[in-house]
Amino acid sequence: MINKQKGIASIITIGDELLIGQTIDTNSAWMGIALNESGIAVRRRLAVGDNWDDIWQAIEQESAFANIILITGGLGPTADDITKPLLCKFFDGELVVDQGALDNVIDIFSNKLGKPLIERNLKQAEVPNTCVVIPNKRGTAPGMLFEKNNCVYVSMPGVPHEMKGMMSDDVIPWLINHFSVDKIIHKTMLTVGIGESFLAEILSPFEQLLPPEIKLAYLPSYGMVRLRLTTSHPSYQAEIEKQFNALKIIVQEHLVADEDLSMQAAVSAKMMEQSKTLSIAESCTGGYIAHLITSLAGSSQFFFGGIVSYSNELKMSLLNVPAEILEEFGAVSIQTVEKMAEGIRLKTGSDFGLATSGIMGPGGGTDTKPVGYVCVAVSLKNKTVSTTFQFRFDRTRNIELTAIQALNFLRKNMG
Amino acid sequence: MINKQKGIASIITIGDELLIGQTIDTNSAWMGIALNESGIAVRRRLAVGDNWDDIWQAIEQESAFANIILITGGLGPTADDITKPLLCKFFDGELVVDQGALDNVIDIFSNKLGKPLIERNLKQAEVPNTCVVIPNKRGTAPGMLFEKNNCVYVSMPGVPHEMKGMMSDDVIPWLINHFSVDKIIHKTMLTVGIGESFLAEILSPFEQLLPPEIKLAYLPSYGMVRLRLTTSHPSYQAEIEKQFNALKIIVQEHLVADEDLSMQAAVSAKMMEQSKTLSIAESCTGGYIAHLITSLAGSSQFFFGGIVSYSNELKMSLLNVPAEILEEFGAVSIQTVEKMAEGIRLKTGSDFGLATSGIMGPGGGTDTKPVGYVCVAVSLKNKTVSTTFQFRFDRTRNIELTAIQALNFLRKNMG
Repeated sequence: MINKQKGIASIITIGDELLIGQTIDTNSAWMGIALNESGIAVRRRLAVGDNWDDIWQAIEQESAFANIILITGGLGPTADDITKPLLCKFFDGELVVDQGALDNVIDIFSNKLGKPLIERNLKQAEVPNTCVVIPNKRGTAPGMLFEKNNCVYVSMPGVPHEMKGMMSDDVIPWLINHFSVDKIIHKTMLTVGIGESFLAEILSPFEQLLPPEIKLAYLPSYGMVRLRLTTSHPSYQAEIEKQFNALKIIVQEHLVADEDLSMQAAVSAKMMEQSKTLSIAESCTGGYIAHLITSLAGSSQFFFGGIVSYSNELKMSLLNVPAEILEEFGAVSIQTVEKMAEGIRLKTGSDFGLATSGIMGPGGGTDTKPVGYVCVAVSLKNKTVSTTFQFRFDRTRNIELTAIQALNFLRKNMG
Repeated sequence: MINKQKGIASIITIGDELLIGQTIDTNSAWMGIALNESGIAVRRRLAVGDNWDDIWQAIEQESAFANIILITGGLGPTADDITKPLLCKFFDGELVVDQGALDNVIDIFSNKLGKPLIERNLKQAEVPNTCVVIPNKRGTAPGMLFEKNNCVYVSMPGVPHEMKGMMSDDVIPWLINHFSVDKIIHKTMLTVGIGESFLAEILSPFEQLLPPEIKLAYLPSYGMVRLRLTTSHPSYQAEIEKQFNALKIIVQEHLVADEDLSMQAAVSAKMMEQSKTLSIAESCTGGYIAHLITSLAGSSQFFFGGIVSYSNELKMSLLNVPAEILEEFGAVSIQTVEKMAEGIRLKTGSDFGLATSGIMGPGGGTDTKPVGYVCVAVSLKNKTVSTTFQFRFDRTRNIELTAIQALNFLRKNMG
């Protein structure tokens, strides 16, 4: 058995699809968050393909860096998955049927799916006899936990919700029980409208006085920069609060939230706090802002809905933008976007109307309105305000940046 | 100089934010795709934190697995970035100012940003004198290319569009020039409505006859499964086409596209092929389907727009859903969603109206309509058709699954 060592994790993800870029690895990010919250630091994350030698070497070598090796992927019912026989050999076991896993497979097929059970599915109940079986309440492939040379290895399916359930229900509780864990404290705030290097310049005196036990990190994304203070020293918990408050004051002009919130969550919180309601008219963002808002549970409390007026006809018929305005100034103009914002607010009876119109690319740009040119307006009861942006990126990034900046413009005009 | 060895890559990404899960690593996926298309296989992907020893060991050890080591991240202008001094030491160099990089920094600040240049930015023009500088046309941090023991190391910024530009403009052409590359052929098709294990059962005879030089992979995601055939043997290019065609016939009932398309791209292609037009009324998907469609350049050719009718009031006022229908059957019902689909089609004059209504969770479920219950309708000129789904996941996943299944229901009803 394992003594109570300090737990340090390495995550191994298996699958050719990760290496050829067909799949983006979101599992590792989720695991990183969950482990950190439990006080287990992740030291390395490694992805290898469906190749016997590469998987073998990965499992063998990561034990030089960590004593908790978490493995996902390669456990499906199909022939391209070789992880289970490999683990069986690596941990000197033999494949045997696990009765609990078998009952689970039978239950899923006959009771939940109502489908006939096939040989291939039964094979999923086989596990090496050298492992502890971790039940899978959400799928057919069981998890497996092995111990070897003071190191713990856990193999889980790559299907995200199965892996997440297994981690939360069984793996993390087991790890906390068997390892000593440090409380790692992160304090994060969200700033917008100032670049990383200018922030660093402003924060230079602050950084110089920061105790070495507290780390400051800059995390830029889509026109925003998150600032994160971190310590794993239990005696610095009071100090990190003090430093965090000092940091807030220094960046207050650019501060959106003093926690690790998304921009849409910051806007939502403010809407609910003020008991205000919102509706959105989107042209260039094509429904993306409404999607960001409605991804948050409970958004129906303040969000009435929106109109994606991609064509000029809909701008006129659904949002009452006058034909003359569209004709004189064009669909992408301050004049049009203000009418859109007023139109959606009046049509739905919400407190705020937010509207976007712009040229996202790759086509559609002109000399005066190039790709990345965006107009944003917010309509309130007694006035309508607007602004323009010029982004310089590809379609996907222009849409994301527009959404973030539009939400920030709304936030600033909420008062 | 390097002989023309076969190029095999390892990708190292640097940053604590990757290990604590604050950032999802999309860079590696993009690099995987770009390298594969150029015939360079990626063997491993490794993420390490902002820690001198861990970065050092990663760079040292990956050369046992690959002769092309691509490093991203850790080059920002702030104090938490330690990669550049480390590379300088690792490759026995001294930091010197690179005139080209300096000119670029000055140009960006004075001409493009119109902001004063600060000391910290000037430091970005310093590079180890043992590297070849790779120009950064999109930002201030230059890339660096080193050679050591028959291995090439390229360090690039972690900002996605800067890294991508550098890879496309300079790094990949350099690699193709200096390494022998295999043409790796992937052929991918998209299926929907059949699980991985049932597909595998149907494909078992096909797999048994597949030449060992061709690999079949199953890539499940959100109710879809991609099937991918891969070969790196130049003499199997004709054979893989033959096998791919055979595979298409076996799965034809579930086939959405015989290329690596997204569901929304498959629907778009069909709309344009048939010269039809579309509009969407979304309740539970909250704008996500409109966003998927409008993420595709050129979607304005067939997409008129949509209404996100989150509240019952908007279902009535904007989509003409009768109050009696909402009262008798509820907002989440076949009756309501059919009226929504008809409403959006008639309001916009499009050929097809697609509508969704459902309970995405975590709250809002009842005994008869639990979380994950979804109604979808498609309205055509002469009829309206509808269906229901029951998903069993969390809010984010339920929204994604609803969008995919709704688009597939539309696709099947387009004729």
